[in-house]
Amino acid sequence: MALSGNVVVAQGGGPTAVINESLVGVVLESRKFAQIKRVYGAVGGVRGIIGEEFLDLTQETTHNLEEVAKTPSSALLSTRDKPDEQYCKHIFEVFRAHDVRYFFYIGGNDSVGTVDIVNNYARLEGYDFRAIHIPKTIDNDIVHNDHTPGYGSAAKFVAQSFIGLNLDNRALPGVHIGVVMGRHSGFLTASSVLAKKYPDDGPHLVYLPERAFELDKFASDVKKVYDKYGRCVVAVSEGIADKDGIPIAQKLGNVERDAYGNVFLSNAELGDLLANHIKRLLKIERVRADTFGYLQRSFGLCISEVDQHEAREAGEKAAQFAIWHDIDGSITLNRIGDYAIDYGIRKLGEVSNRTRTMDEKFINGEGNHVTESFKNYVRPLVGSNLKQGQRLIAPPVKKIIGQNMKALQL
Amino acid sequence: MALSGNVVVAQGGGPTAVINESLVGVVLESRKFAQIKRVYGAVGGVRGIIGEEFLDLTQETTHNLEEVAKTPSSALLSTRDKPDEQYCKHIFEVFRAHDVRYFFYIGGNDSVGTVDIVNNYARLEGYDFRAIHIPKTIDNDIVHNDHTPGYGSAAKFVAQSFIGLNLDNRALPGVHIGVVMGRHSGFLTASSVLAKKYPDDGPHLVYLPERAFELDKFASDVKKVYDKYGRCVVAVSEGIADKDGIPIAQKLGNVERDAYGNVFLSNAELGDLLANHIKRLLKIERVRADTFGYLQRSFGLCISEVDQHEAREAGEKAAQFAIWHDIDGSITLNRIGDYAIDYGIRKLGEVSNRTRTMDEKFINGEGNHVTESFKNYVRPLVGSNLKQGQRLIAPPVKKIIGQNMKALQL
Repeated sequence: MALSGNVVVAQGGGPTAVINESLVGVVLESRKFAQIKRVYGAVGGVRGIIGEEFLDLTQETTHNLEEVAKTPSSALLSTRDKPDEQYCKHIFEVFRAHDVRYFFYIGGNDSVGTVDIVNNYARLEGYDFRAIHIPKTIDNDIVHNDHTPGYGSAAKFVAQSFIGLNLDNRALPGVHIGVVMGRHSGFLTASSVLAKKYPDDGPHLVYLPERAFELDKFASDVKKVYDKYGRCVVAVSEGIADKDGIPIAQKLGNVERDAYGNVFLSNAELGDLLANHIKRLLKIERVRADTFGYLQRSFGLCISEVDQHEAREAGEKAAQFAIWHDIDGSITLNRIGDYAIDYGIRKLGEVSNRTRTMDEKFINGEGNHVTESFKNYVRPLVGSNLKQGQRLIAPPVKKIIGQNMKALQL
Repeated sequence: MALSGNVVVAQGGGPTAVINESLVGVVLESRKFAQIKRVYGAVGGVRGIIGEEFLDLTQETTHNLEEVAKTPSSALLSTRDKPDEQYCKHIFEVFRAHDVRYFFYIGGNDSVGTVDIVNNYARLEGYDFRAIHIPKTIDNDIVHNDHTPGYGSAAKFVAQSFIGLNLDNRALPGVHIGVVMGRHSGFLTASSVLAKKYPDDGPHLVYLPERAFELDKFASDVKKVYDKYGRCVVAVSEGIADKDGIPIAQKLGNVERDAYGNVFLSNAELGDLLANHIKRLLKIERVRADTFGYLQRSFGLCISEVDQHEAREAGEKAAQFAIWHDIDGSITLNRIGDYAIDYGIRKLGEVSNRTRTMDEKFINGEGNHVTESFKNYVRPLVGSNLKQGQRLIAPPVKKIIGQNMKALQL
């Protein structure tokens, strides 16, 4: 409890709708401790640390912090830099120069590694230092967590979008394919299932990267649904791959990779490919595809209040673990009730360089939908005000002209 | 006032987020009149009339109607059928068989024509009949209106999306292109301007179908913005065309047409084309495109309450004009204050077969953005709770290592 000095907080990787809740949690909680002199925000993730681009968040007004908390996307800006040893040495030199004793990094899987390397460097140099990773990701792919902040709000956006697509598809029938973010984990795509209210509602089919995707099976699945309902709504993860692990989208070319070697799949080609495939094979006239893209992670009018509170608390707990309890690690969220969460902390090495995928029990046997178990899992995370549609319930009117008209073949 | 009989209400064309407000406005208002025996809803637009697919909305509960009103996308389902003379004759026969004396059709430009043809048929046959078109369109392209129901909510979705894309692009800089619906009218794309809060916020460039689009000018525009801010957010209408009127998207092939001869441009190719163009010409690494697609018109958590109220009132006024005042026509919304609306009615022939595009005063001289005049025009239509982002205002921390680090070239 005696470790006195400054705090640095930073944000890395792709933004989420609640990433600033965690930031504000760290700032407000850290400012309560007498041994903390200043709370600095590094601008642009680890890159901002190297460049000594710090804002003095000790001087932020509380009101403004609360407004920032409600704003999607990293208020401190972000980076995709993945620090190597040399980079971490520079980070460490800057920390020492600024008497930084606490480092909080809000990020996804890739960011855990960064925190781990920096932390190891400090230990090696005998510099007294606490480093904490605060999870955020819309993909929900961090191990040792029930779920991670950012997922619930993105899931809410996906569910709300599919509610709309399903209503639209019901009014003007055909096949509609919605392509959702998720390279290796299908959690976000799976959340589309919350759009189902009435038994014939879409999504009728849900394809996840956890299962090999076959174009033939896909077409026969769609045909089955279309024959039954005269329409079909499909949720597809951008990361779907064939049995050899080759992403369906990658087969189309124009693939980019970031510094982590991650393939960018958020182009719209996958949706078009699948739509054309269905059109050609099933001779269905009206086949449409939407790729949700970047709208999923920063939509300010579709934020889960549960996600907000948890992101805030994850930031607060991070400050408490480090400053109060003198512990390093990665913050974890574990479900201890229906619905209740316990915040814990894990060693950085246990979390980094791993990717969580969907549990077997969440995916149906055919690999084209999710289970009741998944519905129970995801429902509390999206919060309270998902807007479901309501249908007319009026009785039909008796036909007068009736069968005569049927012959007109309109 | 004495014309006694039944009412038929139907919905045509692409759905909007508030199209059921108009439906419920018609139903609740019609049910107040003693001379109205039944209020029927035709299932699937004019096609449902031909097939005598009516629901007896006189038997809907008021609570359920209010829930349906808040639900996006045509609760009575829709059609893209464009009735010819023969089709209209069938409609008329069904109306006569069911003693239908009032017909309310909620739809876009194409639907006005339908109402007009049916109405002319009734007149020709000496059948006493009132027909009213109630405008709905996210494109805002119906003449003789300040704006039309459905636009405000779609505009809100577009603005909210660009707020998110701008925040995202600020955190991880590059060029981001958002492709918005709108074949001939740029109103919806233009509404993206509401995302601008701080002077350097996007969208930095806005391209509308009302102006010829040049790929070279586009690239030099983007370069100018990118050189200034290190990033660039672009709003592009799906309907942008070159100086010969050839849609940029159409050049890519895979174009479909509906029964009206409308070209479908809502595929994602345009965004990819423009992104690749920028990448190639400007050598910018991070260029992304999102195509908003069908999410724009049925997103239940992004509805303008102004739009809702107006859609409801348009339906109510339609019933009043027809049943109380014995008038045919198309309902109009005109702005008579800042902000106040007057509901009027126009002859169907004055509204059909015409497309409204953006006023000259709404587009800037360079044809790559909108004017202050447009901002004033659109602001009241999206309602009150657009979620703007807030930035940190803390002062920077003095560098200690400073210039030395700059040489590291990270």
